[in-house]
Amino acid sequence: MKARVYVSLKSTVLDPQGQTVKSALGSLGYKSIADVRQGKFFEIALEPGTLPEKARGEIDTIAREVLTNPVIEEYRIEFSD
Amino acid sequence: MKARVYVSLKSTVLDPQGQTVKSALGSLGYKSIADVRQGKFFEIALEPGTLPEKARGEIDTIAREVLTNPVIEEYRIEFSD
Repeated sequence: MKARVYVSLKSTVLDPQGQTVKSALGSLGYKSIADVRQGKFFEIALEPGTLPEKARGEIDTIAREVLTNPVIEEYRIEFSD
Repeated sequence: MKARVYVSLKSTVLDPQGQTVKSALGSLGYKSIADVRQGKFFEIALEPGTLPEKARGEIDTIAREVLTNPVIEEYRIEFSD
C-alpha cells in the first residue's frame, strides 16, 4: 500500500518560490501563465501486511503532526494499492 | 484552466531528504513505514481564454525544460478546469 501526502501553502499565505518561478517563466516568454504556487509531496510506502484501516489513521496523523505546519500549510492524502 | 506538474527524483536516484523523513518517522514510533520519497509540485494557473491545446503544449514544454532536471528527475502533469 502506498500513500501520497501533498503539502501546500494555504491560499492566504504568500508563496515567494512560486512567484519567482512565475516571473522566470514570464521572462522566458511564457505569457499565458497567470499564477504559480509551489508545494511538496511525500510518497510513503507502507510495510506489506499493514492493515488498510490502521495505515489510513497513521498516515493521517503523520501528515497532520509531522509533515505539515498547520499555521501556514494544508495537506491532502491519496491512497493507492 | 489549471495544471499541476509533479516533479520527483527518478527511482534510481538516492533521495536523502526522503530517507531523513523516513528515519525521523521511525524514531517517532511509526514502524509500518517502509519507504519515503519526497518530491515537489507546481500548481500553474493559466490566463483565462488560453486555448486548451496551446496550454497543454506550453505546460509540457515548461515541465520538461524549466521545472525538471532531466538527468535526475521525472515529471507528471495533471490538467483540470
